[in-house]
Amino acid sequence: MLREFFQSIESSAAGTGFELQDIVDNLAFNEKGLIPVITQDDNTKAVLMMAWMNKAALMKTLQTGKVTYWSRSRNAFWVKGETSGHVQYLVNMFFDCDGDTILCMVDQTGDACHTMRDSCFYFKVDADAQKVMVTCASKA
Amino acid sequence: MLREFFQSIESSAAGTGFELQDIVDNLAFNEKGLIPVITQDDNTKAVLMMAWMNKAALMKTLQTGKVTYWSRSRNAFWVKGETSGHVQYLVNMFFDCDGDTILCMVDQTGDACHTMRDSCFYFKVDADAQKVMVTCASKA
Repeated sequence: MLREFFQSIESSAAGTGFELQDIVDNLAFNEKGLIPVITQDDNTKAVLMMAWMNKAALMKTLQTGKVTYWSRSRNAFWVKGETSGHVQYLVNMFFDCDGDTILCMVDQTGDACHTMRDSCFYFKVDADAQKVMVTCASKA
Repeated sequence: MLREFFQSIESSAAGTGFELQDIVDNLAFNEKGLIPVITQDDNTKAVLMMAWMNKAALMKTLQTGKVTYWSRSRNAFWVKGETSGHVQYLVNMFFDCDGDTILCMVDQTGDACHTMRDSCFYFKVDADAQKVMVTCASKA
């Protein structure tokens, strides 16, 4: 049913507008009420991390302008940077064609990764050598 | 247990190498054997889409150089572009700090989105107006 909603609007012309609440209510939250969120640095365009939001975290992110995930380990809101100071200020938020993923473009304060690296994606595959290499050092 | 593996290597120095198979065997595939994959255009740096791989699709992607997902609806390999011609040639693959997400940097042939748009992320939130706007037209 949720898929039908996005199928019904996926071919809309550029500039078409929808009510935010209608879209949010039709997002494909999974059986745990969560949706994956990709976070990209609006300046460098680096993909910083992937985490999850529930509907409340999504609305909180839009209301506060600070990216707020749902922590699956703590089962609580996770205002990114609340303890580290590495806040992610929301620049733009996008939903994808079938409403099952969120993309947040952010101004990232400090490092996005808890290991003190710019991005969480620092294990790079070398398929020829059948190796995985660490691409950058922690600043810790 | 899986988390412990990545915790044990997350602080490794730049240039440290690991066996690909050891890393892949410790990735956090979910209860359905799947892991989320973010696909980014290596040229424009646009985030193109999010989909899923199982271990076999991951190895097939590395072996063939063509990004191959696992289709949750068809329950089958999904060689991106096999029918549309919109192949994603793998440039680089990364894993994140806790081994629960893959990032594929690709050379994208044609449109990544099935709606004939460059990227699947074309529903843009206008939080002030409480609207969601379609940012670009389909080329179909």
